[in-house]
Amino acid sequence: MGTATAIAHPNIALIKYWGKRDETLMLPAAGSLSMTLDSVATRTTVSVGGDSDVFQLNGELSTGRAADKVFKFLDLVRQLAGSDDRATVLSHNDAPTAAGLASSASGFAALATAAAAAYGLNLSTAELSRLARRGSGSAARSLIDRFAVWHAGDDDQTSFAEEIDAPDMRMIICEINAGPKAVSSRDGMRHTRDTSPFYPAWAPATEKALAEMLAACAAQDFTKIGELTEAHAMQMHALALSAVPPLRYLAPTSFAAFDRIAELRATGIETYGTADAGPNVVAIARPKDAAAVAAALSEFGATHIAAPGPGAYLEGAA
Amino acid sequence: MGTATAIAHPNIALIKYWGKRDETLMLPAAGSLSMTLDSVATRTTVSVGGDSDVFQLNGELSTGRAADKVFKFLDLVRQLAGSDDRATVLSHNDAPTAAGLASSASGFAALATAAAAAYGLNLSTAELSRLARRGSGSAARSLIDRFAVWHAGDDDQTSFAEEIDAPDMRMIICEINAGPKAVSSRDGMRHTRDTSPFYPAWAPATEKALAEMLAACAAQDFTKIGELTEAHAMQMHALALSAVPPLRYLAPTSFAAFDRIAELRATGIETYGTADAGPNVVAIARPKDAAAVAAALSEFGATHIAAPGPGAYLEGAA
Repeated sequence: MGTATAIAHPNIALIKYWGKRDETLMLPAAGSLSMTLDSVATRTTVSVGGDSDVFQLNGELSTGRAADKVFKFLDLVRQLAGSDDRATVLSHNDAPTAAGLASSASGFAALATAAAAAYGLNLSTAELSRLARRGSGSAARSLIDRFAVWHAGDDDQTSFAEEIDAPDMRMIICEINAGPKAVSSRDGMRHTRDTSPFYPAWAPATEKALAEMLAACAAQDFTKIGELTEAHAMQMHALALSAVPPLRYLAPTSFAAFDRIAELRATGIETYGTADAGPNVVAIARPKDAAAVAAALSEFGATHIAAPGPGAYLEGAA
Repeated sequence: MGTATAIAHPNIALIKYWGKRDETLMLPAAGSLSMTLDSVATRTTVSVGGDSDVFQLNGELSTGRAADKVFKFLDLVRQLAGSDDRATVLSHNDAPTAAGLASSASGFAALATAAAAAYGLNLSTAELSRLARRGSGSAARSLIDRFAVWHAGDDDQTSFAEEIDAPDMRMIICEINAGPKAVSSRDGMRHTRDTSPFYPAWAPATEKALAEMLAACAAQDFTKIGELTEAHAMQMHALALSAVPPLRYLAPTSFAAFDRIAELRATGIETYGTADAGPNVVAIARPKDAAAVAAALSEFGATHIAAPGPGAYLEGAA
């Protein structure tokens, strides 16, 4: 028991996670696949002790919905540890929160790792991935080094992420708009599930795309990986757009960036686009092409290049 | 037998037609509903006689695929008329061809009407609608005054359009880009059918939306008509976007126009957007609001306002 600090990075999915089949256990409708970034970190310290749970984000005391999610997550950790002790959580996030850079993924990956250590649990990476999943689905993937497949699973035990091999690549993140999302992923998933006529086809289509992506990764086939990435991202955004009323996360400038990515391909720079539930566009490219892609996308917003990074890890435990 | 001239206008669907279940008979996957415009006309003269079929469009001799479609259509008319006579077709179209203003709809509506008269057939509006359908599916609707429902039907006999009552409204057409479409509707429909995981859900969703739209029209409920219009348009574009590779007809500026339409609604001007298989955006509004909507959309491209117009009609027969 004591204090532990963990660092985690966001991840960007090549096969997207959208929709849950169990909201309590956070079991996804289908599996997904992602790259963990080497940049933009969340650093979280959990100190066990005190009269009540406290959550401080980027130096400010947090209350309301965000804090409730953290305290509920601590309850899960306490349950595993057989403890009733309260804790203080100090978290710092480099990325603009809720702007489509998956800060909840790095946030809950760091929290799971730090809290488990602070409460004296000794969990494997797969166990930490399962635990992080309960805070935010995609956090399960930020536990994993480089490239992760998140198995949808049938229950709490079988739904976790693990590392896979994939060709080295870069992600060029273009921040189209750093404002908060109009509709959160969580609410968007519910709205899509409840109103889109296409929703029943989504999970089987995703499982099929995931199987193709795993084969493409195993074959180190960057072209196929890119084509699958862009098509699946568009299917996720198509699914949202088919909700009633329609849900559109991409801005006009996001589409202009996708057009630019297609133009780059036509001129021999092989790059493909994806986007999470927000306006930011993420291009993938071979390492040698990353700088050229970043330069081409810079007219649409600030860009930065990320390489495959480490899964969540402990900085120190006391 | 002799010469006949017909005039027809494009129509813009409020419930979209996308996908066929019979490509020879041009039976659609689901029913649809549209407004015939009072502006942008096709004027077509058919003169029976001569050694071979001739097709001239906007003063230029047409050959290749476009001409073949016209001659194949004349074969259908000759079959009905029991004639082997060739014909000369002179057609003039106000709108830029194949730029998303449904020139094929007005084109085949005018051709069906003129050719039937020139070959001495005396067909009802429903029969002309069926005939026009064989040339271009949506042409079935341009036979109809003001507002048309196109019944999907089970066979050639039961698949035709007929007039329905709907509240008076205006369509504000914003020409985002007058260039030719990258992928024709016909090819896009095939690609979507062959590759989109969402395609099986499209026809039932459209029939459901059509039933709701017919009820909203009968109730003269403009708000409901608008909401259904925009949601169904987005579902059609979502369907195209979900194809592999993705098919996107809307340009970044098209999405900016949709954003503007949403802003207008938020400020009390009730307008809703739709778009056919191209970048142009069409807003619907009550007559009193049309000028304000056109002014607001003019920053994205040339706008014009259309009212409900007449179905195809004969100008004269000799």
